[in-house]
Amino acid sequence: MTQSTISKSHMVVAQNASGRNMNVPIYRITGSKPGPTVYIQSSIHGAEVQGNVVIYQLIQYLKQLDVCGEIILVPNCNPVGTNIKAGEYTLGRFDPVNGTNWNRGYYYDEQKVHEFAETVSAQESLSSVKQRFRAFWRQAINEKLSSGWGLGLAQQLNLKLQLLAVDADIVLDLHNGPVSTRHVYLPEYAADAAKLLNIPHTILIPNQFAGALDEATFCPWWTLQSLISAQRQEAVSCNVEAMTLEMGSQEVIAFEEGKQDAQSILSYLSKRGIINDCPYEPLAMHRVGVYLKDYRTLYTQWGGMVEYVARPGDKISAGEPLARVLNIDELDNADATFTVTAPCDVIPILHFPSASVLSGTQLYKAFTRYFDITSE
Amino acid sequence: MTQSTISKSHMVVAQNASGRNMNVPIYRITGSKPGPTVYIQSSIHGAEVQGNVVIYQLIQYLKQLDVCGEIILVPNCNPVGTNIKAGEYTLGRFDPVNGTNWNRGYYYDEQKVHEFAETVSAQESLSSVKQRFRAFWRQAINEKLSSGWGLGLAQQLNLKLQLLAVDADIVLDLHNGPVSTRHVYLPEYAADAAKLLNIPHTILIPNQFAGALDEATFCPWWTLQSLISAQRQEAVSCNVEAMTLEMGSQEVIAFEEGKQDAQSILSYLSKRGIINDCPYEPLAMHRVGVYLKDYRTLYTQWGGMVEYVARPGDKISAGEPLARVLNIDELDNADATFTVTAPCDVIPILHFPSASVLSGTQLYKAFTRYFDITSE
Amino acid sequence: MTQSTISKSHMVVAQNASGRNMNVPIYRITGSKPGPTVYIQSSIHGAEVQGNVVIYQLIQYLKQLDVCGEIILVPNCNPVGTNIKAGEYTLGRFDPVNGTNWNRGYYYDEQKVHEFAETVSAQESLSSVKQRFRAFWRQAINEKLSSGWGLGLAQQLNLKLQLLAVDADIVLDLHNGPVSTRHVYLPEYAADAAKLLNIPHTILIPNQFAGALDEATFCPWWTLQSLISAQRQEAVSCNVEAMTLEMGSQEVIAFEEGKQDAQSILSYLSKRGIINDCPYEPLAMHRVGVYLKDYRTLYTQWGGMVEYVARPGDKISAGEPLARVLNIDELDNADATFTVTAPCDVIPILHFPSASVLSGTQLYKAFTRYFDITSE
Amino acid sequence: MTQSTISKSHMVVAQNASGRNMNVPIYRITGSKPGPTVYIQSSIHGAEVQGNVVIYQLIQYLKQLDVCGEIILVPNCNPVGTNIKAGEYTLGRFDPVNGTNWNRGYYYDEQKVHEFAETVSAQESLSSVKQRFRAFWRQAINEKLSSGWGLGLAQQLNLKLQLLAVDADIVLDLHNGPVSTRHVYLPEYAADAAKLLNIPHTILIPNQFAGALDEATFCPWWTLQSLISAQRQEAVSCNVEAMTLEMGSQEVIAFEEGKQDAQSILSYLSKRGIINDCPYEPLAMHRVGVYLKDYRTLYTQWGGMVEYVARPGDKISAGEPLARVLNIDELDNADATFTVTAPCDVIPILHFPSASVLSGTQLYKAFTRYFDITSE
Repeated sequence: MTQSTISKSHMVVAQNASGRNMNVPIYRITGSKPGPTVYIQSSIHGAEVQGNVVIYQLIQYLKQLDVCGEIILVPNCNPVGTNIKAGEYTLGRFDPVNGTNWNRGYYYDEQKVHEFAETVSAQESLSSVKQRFRAFWRQAINEKLSSGWGLGLAQQLNLKLQLLAVDADIVLDLHNGPVSTRHVYLPEYAADAAKLLNIPHTILIPNQFAGALDEATFCPWWTLQSLISAQRQEAVSCNVEAMTLEMGSQEVIAFEEGKQDAQSILSYLSKRGIINDCPYEPLAMHRVGVYLKDYRTLYTQWGGMVEYVARPGDKISAGEPLARVLNIDELDNADATFTVTAPCDVIPILHFPSASVLSGTQLYKAFTRYFDITSE
Repeated sequence: MTQSTISKSHMVVAQNASGRNMNVPIYRITGSKPGPTVYIQSSIHGAEVQGNVVIYQLIQYLKQLDVCGEIILVPNCNPVGTNIKAGEYTLGRFDPVNGTNWNRGYYYDEQKVHEFAETVSAQESLSSVKQRFRAFWRQAINEKLSSGWGLGLAQQLNLKLQLLAVDADIVLDLHNGPVSTRHVYLPEYAADAAKLLNIPHTILIPNQFAGALDEATFCPWWTLQSLISAQRQEAVSCNVEAMTLEMGSQEVIAFEEGKQDAQSILSYLSKRGIINDCPYEPLAMHRVGVYLKDYRTLYTQWGGMVEYVARPGDKISAGEPLARVLNIDELDNADATFTVTAPCDVIPILHFPSASVLSGTQLYKAFTRYFDITSE
Repeated sequence: MTQSTISKSHMVVAQNASGRNMNVPIYRITGSKPGPTVYIQSSIHGAEVQGNVVIYQLIQYLKQLDVCGEIILVPNCNPVGTNIKAGEYTLGRFDPVNGTNWNRGYYYDEQKVHEFAETVSAQESLSSVKQRFRAFWRQAINEKLSSGWGLGLAQQLNLKLQLLAVDADIVLDLHNGPVSTRHVYLPEYAADAAKLLNIPHTILIPNQFAGALDEATFCPWWTLQSLISAQRQEAVSCNVEAMTLEMGSQEVIAFEEGKQDAQSILSYLSKRGIINDCPYEPLAMHRVGVYLKDYRTLYTQWGGMVEYVARPGDKISAGEPLARVLNIDELDNADATFTVTAPCDVIPILHFPSASVLSGTQLYKAFTRYFDITSE
Repeated sequence: MTQSTISKSHMVVAQNASGRNMNVPIYRITGSKPGPTVYIQSSIHGAEVQGNVVIYQLIQYLKQLDVCGEIILVPNCNPVGTNIKAGEYTLGRFDPVNGTNWNRGYYYDEQKVHEFAETVSAQESLSSVKQRFRAFWRQAINEKLSSGWGLGLAQQLNLKLQLLAVDADIVLDLHNGPVSTRHVYLPEYAADAAKLLNIPHTILIPNQFAGALDEATFCPWWTLQSLISAQRQEAVSCNVEAMTLEMGSQEVIAFEEGKQDAQSILSYLSKRGIINDCPYEPLAMHRVGVYLKDYRTLYTQWGGMVEYVARPGDKISAGEPLARVLNIDELDNADATFTVTAPCDVIPILHFPSASVLSGTQLYKAFTRYFDITSE
């Protein structure tokens, strides 16, 4: 086996109020043989830190493995969000200046894909199409980035990261939920990848852009291959996959769990041809899927103190308790507590991380109308 | 002259983590004669407080005036955002839990308007159409509000307020900019209202919904009247106007300025038939307009400490200084400071309220390609 | 058995920026027989919410028990701190305007105790002394509260609560640590109370005031009884006990654990004569104590991402790992991680609740030079 | 005239959660002749940024002037506080993790001064005493900094800065108030320095330590010279002066005002022998002083929206209006507004920077019982 090589660089993504550059580390593992390009980042939401450990463990494994192609790893990809404390916790989900979610400013423009598709002739090889499309897309992102009046901080950060990912065949964006079980967002066309990851819960998402990196990756390719398939009247696949992996709960890292997470990703990468002789195979496990429209958020209509009775990952039948609420003004009577029950059969995937909730809080996000994935 | 009457009530819009209701005050001034309905709210963004004073001054004036119709006034309409402090300032622009802008969750669904328009016959009177449409729209908002899994806090708040506004012919949403001169957002079809307000700067916005209350009000009516006009092949107007008035800078109230602001609104309401024998007329003043697409944001590409040299409202020619920046790491050399200049002829309308800026900060928002409104 | 009675009232402790009163609920349980007065409050730190459940469970039990004297219970005693969100968590430890810890503004003035002690004659009975001292102290707090130029919010809140506690013979202030095992702060003179609570870890504190309610309660009594003891040349005890109970981790409530916590408090109250025929006895368990000077905080000298390896409550020997740190800039070499070890034999009691730490962070608080309490 | 030289270095004061060093710039201007040592820092409170401009302007002037001795300038001395945004403003007054004021962790230990004073013989020259005391004090700070279990972030930062200041004869700590007129805190023994600065308001503080840098500088020297004076039975002065200069309002920089501020400091330094042939002299102006005990804070007893009627620096007689308050729930009646009046003759120096206040807010800080300084 020939050894892969690892190199490290840093990219400036922002400047703080002291005028100092803020940069992200970029690790590149170059295999001894050609192969796909993989892009993996973590912590675009600053409090979601387990992905950094996953990348650490991946690097330890990959140093020993036979890699084909290139793997680009960007841990801690949001140096602003990582470092905003509000109390003891990390205010990492949005820009504290304006509330902008750090994960909604990636570039996509459906019109641009149509524009490009018109340049594709019936004879052009798919590899040529892909190569030209990457250059075209990189150009579009660069134009956006250099617009004369500038861009907001989150968008600048997102686009600089997206440029690192634009050549990738596989894009993995590592996140965490608040208090959460592991789950993954996959585009519907790549649903079979769910079986290659050791993650029990999969959300299948349609070809719709809401600003995140996975969507910003698969929406153009999905749209492009749909247009070409229509033109050529045969199913064409660009073989680009992008997904968001939610590696458990925010604000926590666990090195041992990170090893399991890394092995899960290695299993998947191995099946996609990036690793030769990989010692890790997808585990036999119960996997459950849901369509995005059936991944529901349960909001509160009340404020109070909550015990989260249902644990993420548990199957809860309609009518069974999800949460128990304390009403501090009624401790002397029967209204002191009440129970929130499941409106239908659900698997809670994550819940709010604080006992104290106002009305309109995302109490739980849950699978409804879920199905068995392994048996598909 | 017959006196108008004033009544007061409170509406619960949220519940806090202590389980206590949070409510908004609602003042209703009922004229002695019939006439249009007006809805005015202030402080949906918690730090934007001058509108509360404007409503106070309006009430003082209106008590003395001959009102036709009804005026509903809701000061301090966001009790959550008003009361979130982060340091000495009010974190009032977005929900501190999730970053949701408090002013983006109003209801609009273009498809619904089309659906309704199909129920309008060629013979139906406009007043009948308007009445049926209000009921239809109220129903749609109520359905949204009562959706089984609930809604986020900002959206719940927005929809409850929107229900108060749904019968109004005129909707005024009172805001402030960060450090800002007075300006107003008007739908293009109601551009002539600009001349009735004593506000020097007007932004004309197209029929596009971005979540705010003014848009949520005029988009359905604009769309509806366009559809009916097309059906009937004649220009039809529903005579509903909605606008966002930006009454100077946030974090500040000024009672005397509030009187001027109130007189400006009274002048406009008088011209729209809500006030008889109003002693206030629109002032002769220089008014400038811009199309929304030409109301530009200048973002920083750098971080540092800024002196805002150009004052909101001043005309600045291309190349003239907007801001001067200090670089604390280069105080001993020529890079210690640099100047940001206007990229074209502009009128800065507002600037960031802190000297300390990261890269990607909204330094200024400015009119470009502006035009004289009075001479139109 | 005669039934005790329960009554409820509310006390205004603050007014928010909307001008609305913010109040706390006060539950009073009056026994059928005379006896001591007990004051119990919870959640002076807004994110420390388990005490609210403990008070709920206490009320459920006390309704059924034979109480002697009066028990005053104030759950959620800080309506401001409870309702400040910063991200999903509660910014409950300090006033967000100025950083003032909500638990440092209670009243104590040693000079005042000396002043009072001079009024005590050799013949005065202890019960007369106690009665007069309570009146004297209440007067001093009231004078402080009504000072002409006013007081800061935290201090206003603290003093209003302290007035509720001034007649109490027993004061329990219910708190939580960040991620924490259960522990209790006791004044040294009341060390034997440690054996009456089902709490494994006790910190014994000297007669020094640092602003908290327990100190504000025991410092005056301790000082007074020392002065009288010296005067009379015999040991005199005022029999007032005050303590801070830390009921596990912040941001979490658990109803079942609250039952255990309530039973623990009932056992203690029973031994102090407040409950007749109490079904709960202090449990046989291993209890460990430490003097305050040996309850040490381990601060970081570095910033990074941390896995908290040592769990609160575990005995850790010198040199064993407490935490493992990830350095995201060195994932490709041996500096990628390092281990923080115990500087001596310790029992970690609590650790920081976020994996992301700057330099100078309170990583762990730990018992050192601890001793067995049961065997004393 | 011989030119002074300027050099620049950086000192690491913290490490962020990404593991990156955070450093402060240090500028040293070395005169061509010997003389006193001056230490000037700015922005220990992150939102108080005008001092950075003052240091910039000072450097521009000092480059041209004949300096005796050494001037150490540290702008932006708190890179953590400078970069914590909460909304558009800078949360710069306290550590967002725990509320610790960034300006309360400097070192002072009165006992240590007594300890040192015992080593001073009657014959030792004052210059020898000063030299030995500086070494002694540096050692004490270093011991504190290297304590085995570490220190909190604010204290680490403070002590590292204090080490830069320990050799200085003059220490200037540049701050800003919220909305504020210029004022200065001086130790009582250096009251005459007030006439050398172009600052209209001076607060004279006693020999008491509350944690700030000026106190941490003058308390040891004041105590030491008092002890030696007592020993030698003659007045001895160590000629060390330390002060906090409040350069107007926070969140704002102004280059032209910074020139005035710099000239004011140059006038003072010139009189203290640091600058030869200085072109700037203290201006003839009205100067007013107050003892610290008479510099009072007016707290609110209510919450509401406030117009600050009295401007900082204005003389306000007892009973005249300071502020006018809006009560949004009473806009229809006479309780809609009320006026806060001056409780005695005052000069307001600063007021709260937001119209929205809770009860217990520091509405104004004001001079009472003030006196004319120039005429002393």
